[in-house]
Amino acid sequence: MVAQKPSCVVLGGGGFIGTNLCRRLAASGHRVRAFGRRRLFPDELRDIDWVEGDFTDPAATGAAVDSFDIVFHLVHATMPQAADLDMIGDVQKNVVPTLALLDHCRTAGVKRVVFASSGGTIYGKARQIPTPETAPTDPICAYGISKLAIEKYLALFQHLHGLDFRVLRITNPYGPFQVALKNQGVIAALIARALRDEPVEIWGDGSVVRDFVFVEDVVDALVAAATDGSGERVFNIGSGQGRSLRDIIAAIEHQMGKTLNLQWKPGRPLDVPVSVVAINRAAESLGWMPGTSFEAGLERTIAWGKANLR
Amino acid sequence: MVAQKPSCVVLGGGGFIGTNLCRRLAASGHRVRAFGRRRLFPDELRDIDWVEGDFTDPAATGAAVDSFDIVFHLVHATMPQAADLDMIGDVQKNVVPTLALLDHCRTAGVKRVVFASSGGTIYGKARQIPTPETAPTDPICAYGISKLAIEKYLALFQHLHGLDFRVLRITNPYGPFQVALKNQGVIAALIARALRDEPVEIWGDGSVVRDFVFVEDVVDALVAAATDGSGERVFNIGSGQGRSLRDIIAAIEHQMGKTLNLQWKPGRPLDVPVSVVAINRAAESLGWMPGTSFEAGLERTIAWGKANLR
Repeated sequence: MVAQKPSCVVLGGGGFIGTNLCRRLAASGHRVRAFGRRRLFPDELRDIDWVEGDFTDPAATGAAVDSFDIVFHLVHATMPQAADLDMIGDVQKNVVPTLALLDHCRTAGVKRVVFASSGGTIYGKARQIPTPETAPTDPICAYGISKLAIEKYLALFQHLHGLDFRVLRITNPYGPFQVALKNQGVIAALIARALRDEPVEIWGDGSVVRDFVFVEDVVDALVAAATDGSGERVFNIGSGQGRSLRDIIAAIEHQMGKTLNLQWKPGRPLDVPVSVVAINRAAESLGWMPGTSFEAGLERTIAWGKANLR
Repeated sequence: MVAQKPSCVVLGGGGFIGTNLCRRLAASGHRVRAFGRRRLFPDELRDIDWVEGDFTDPAATGAAVDSFDIVFHLVHATMPQAADLDMIGDVQKNVVPTLALLDHCRTAGVKRVVFASSGGTIYGKARQIPTPETAPTDPICAYGISKLAIEKYLALFQHLHGLDFRVLRITNPYGPFQVALKNQGVIAALIARALRDEPVEIWGDGSVVRDFVFVEDVVDALVAAATDGSGERVFNIGSGQGRSLRDIIAAIEHQMGKTLNLQWKPGRPLDVPVSVVAINRAAESLGWMPGTSFEAGLERTIAWGKANLR
């Protein structure tokens, strides 16, 4: 007798990470449902059960997760900058619906919730670089505070109700199916603008250091987290290596063989100067490593962009 | 020229700590306003500007704080156990109105917000006893998560908007003007029942250890926090000493000269076995020490109870 693969519902399944995750889960034989407001690339999810709905509607979300073993929670309904301008809206659209979701999951027989948290914002200005999971969590943006609150509620639901969970603190993902929106996804933005020979705005002086992780490596981590049997619950998921924005720009110009038309803008208060996470825990407990070098990941992202973004 | 004392508005000013704080501030010459849904002891606040209103009404709260220098935020609209049963309600009644309050404070010229956080719940099951402010904050109740989220938003408002703040993580306060409500305030409950010769329910086996701090010492800390010029923002406020519930019962029986009629009930999942905080930081940076011994505080609390609770 072969153990059945757990069925999976992906909240935010039509987005960047969600599209990659749904395709992977379907390809490896899981029953998969994607739930969200929209699909960035509907054709790429054409073989996957799609339920359109708003995460802030508890009835829609509840109905979507019923009968599934694993709930991947990849939704964040607000962008980092928008969250700072409307913190109450950020709470209402993210924390409150997540509480309704968890309350539903605990009665619906969901076996585990895997939550995409934010490795790039949850620590704030970290004193320790690379930053381990045990570091203080002092976000300097509302987006990070919502993510942190949700992490704490997940632990509380496990404590009070036995609802199992894993948290992945994902840094800056990049790769196929990423569409640059409102200053998120700088690599996607740079490639898209370069392909169209458009100017691109850069906030700050390019010295900010980020931990870029290839989306297929993130998908590996999400899949591993779904069945992880370790005692750990919270994992940093990044490359473990810092790259400055200037390095990123130089690498893209090199691989694409053209010079970007950069327009420099003042830095934003939500930008921490350096964000790089330590990934030892994921290596040791989850058996996960980011398998894709930055050069290889960038090459595949540019190839995907050339085929899809022009 | 004598420096003017800062004017103070106390949100939750009609409650246990609030009543004590308002009386102290008025006695030392501050302009004081108390705001809240109700006054536990209206006569004791008769000389103090009282504004009745609901903290969840942003217009009422905003109007109440206008023109004041210091905002003491002592409101928590839900009890710990109720919060676990209605986490969304807990967020809506506490976190969301606090965000509206902070947004108002930053434009109204408020100089500092002093927030009463929870030393007894914010750390969860602490590995280090007594627990310093730098310990991990992993609450095992929704009440503690709300308090934690508010702490993080306070730091964010300072980061983004320069709104100054102090957080006092207060442990288990006891003393005059405490009225036992729904399993909060075990000392007040024990004394009141003893005075009326009524039976009293005890959850657990009496082995839980708590850090009881006399309310006038808490008031000292709140007053010090209002004008503190140290670089620290977050302070544990407790006695720094643990006492088991059995010890408390024995001390009350001894001082009152009677045997309590105890009814033992099963423990609750939100109870951590031991909660004692380290108070070095408050001593060093705030210049504060809990000046009242447990025996002296208990004596004054019993005397107050005899005069007011029978």
